[in-house]
Amino acid sequence: MPTIFFYGPRLEKEKKKELIRAFTSAASAATGIREEAFVVYLMETAPEQVGVGGELLEEKLKES
Amino acid sequence: MPTIFFYGPRLEKEKKKELIRAFTSAASAATGIREEAFVVYLMETAPEQVGVGGELLEEKLKES
Amino acid sequence: MPTIFFYGPRLEKEKKKELIRAFTSAASAATGIREEAFVVYLMETAPEQVGVGGELLEEKLKES
Amino acid sequence: MPTIFFYGPRLEKEKKKELIRAFTSAASAATGIREEAFVVYLMETAPEQVGVGGELLEEKLKES
Amino acid sequence: MPTIFFYGPRLEKEKKKELIRAFTSAASAATGIREEAFVVYLMETAPEQVGVGGELLEEKLKES
Amino acid sequence: MPTIFFYGPRLEKEKKKELIRAFTSAASAATGIREEAFVVYLMETAPEQVGVGGELLEEKLKES
Repeated sequence: MPTIFFYGPRLEKEKKKELIRAFTSAASAATGIREEAFVVYLMETAPEQVGVGGELLEEKLKES
Repeated sequence: MPTIFFYGPRLEKEKKKELIRAFTSAASAATGIREEAFVVYLMETAPEQVGVGGELLEEKLKES
Repeated sequence: MPTIFFYGPRLEKEKKKELIRAFTSAASAATGIREEAFVVYLMETAPEQVGVGGELLEEKLKES
Repeated sequence: MPTIFFYGPRLEKEKKKELIRAFTSAASAATGIREEAFVVYLMETAPEQVGVGGELLEEKLKES
Repeated sequence: MPTIFFYGPRLEKEKKKELIRAFTSAASAATGIREEAFVVYLMETAPEQVGVGGELLEEKLKES
Repeated sequence: MPTIFFYGPRLEKEKKKELIRAFTSAASAATGIREEAFVVYLMETAPEQVGVGGELLEEKLKES
């Protein structure tokens, strides 16, 4: 029963489904474990809760 | 200072209290560490952020 | 498919089994989800990788 | 590319920025890895999802 | 800088590389973020630290 | 009882102590919570279990 956590930006439903399908299929192929056993958690993280290089991502995105 | 994370569905307050009490008591009994040292995080995960068997949980629940 | 992570000390096999049984049973009771759907990860953390109150747990244990 | 997760109370933006700066700077100094490589996730946890000593933090805070 | 954690069985190096490549490529496609920004952690979990359905995975594997 | 997880390279004991002290002190200052309440987990991750930009860190380090 392997488990995958994804910490990343908000995704639309179609993208979530694509990601879950792709993660599960890749992990099943690499481990030889059947797809039914995999759980994926999409943990949405907002730019105001993430730091990159010591700076709030929210501010980095404004600069760029 | 052991730490427990629970990733699961939304719970009503009484259920949260039950779960925290039961987790802490079981973990204290198994480790011999006093209950005061335990921290439990209840991480609510919604059906639209969970994948099971390669499929979005939200859609699996609709089918069943 | 809820998931539980336990970060705590090394446990003997009997204690691991007790803990897994107790966590799963409590979580199944609180959520109404069948026991088969629960996964528990026992993440063993050694005193030389844990800090409590700003101090390495390994050194705190020596003092006490 | 080290990664830091902070599970703690809601913080104002200035405090978030301070924390990200301090975590990144300390971790870069201890590891010798450049600051740009560090990612920090501030995971806000509310008192109604945290258990301390077997009790819901929300209720502990009321008592004190 | 999204981050992916995989909790699953020990993998040979070629399988690790495949999994990292597949996770990163799928996550980059779904988010539109360049591959360089992704970090993947393969967290190997042994059957004697995992519980499935209330039972130690190590014992479940013996039975099957 | 806030909790900090650090996923990064192996550190010598003095560096671990420095990191735990610095994380705890910064987090206590930002939150206003006393240092005694903080737990830090140093999760050592080896280059053969980390992927960066779709490539195994172990191989990236060899190239550079």
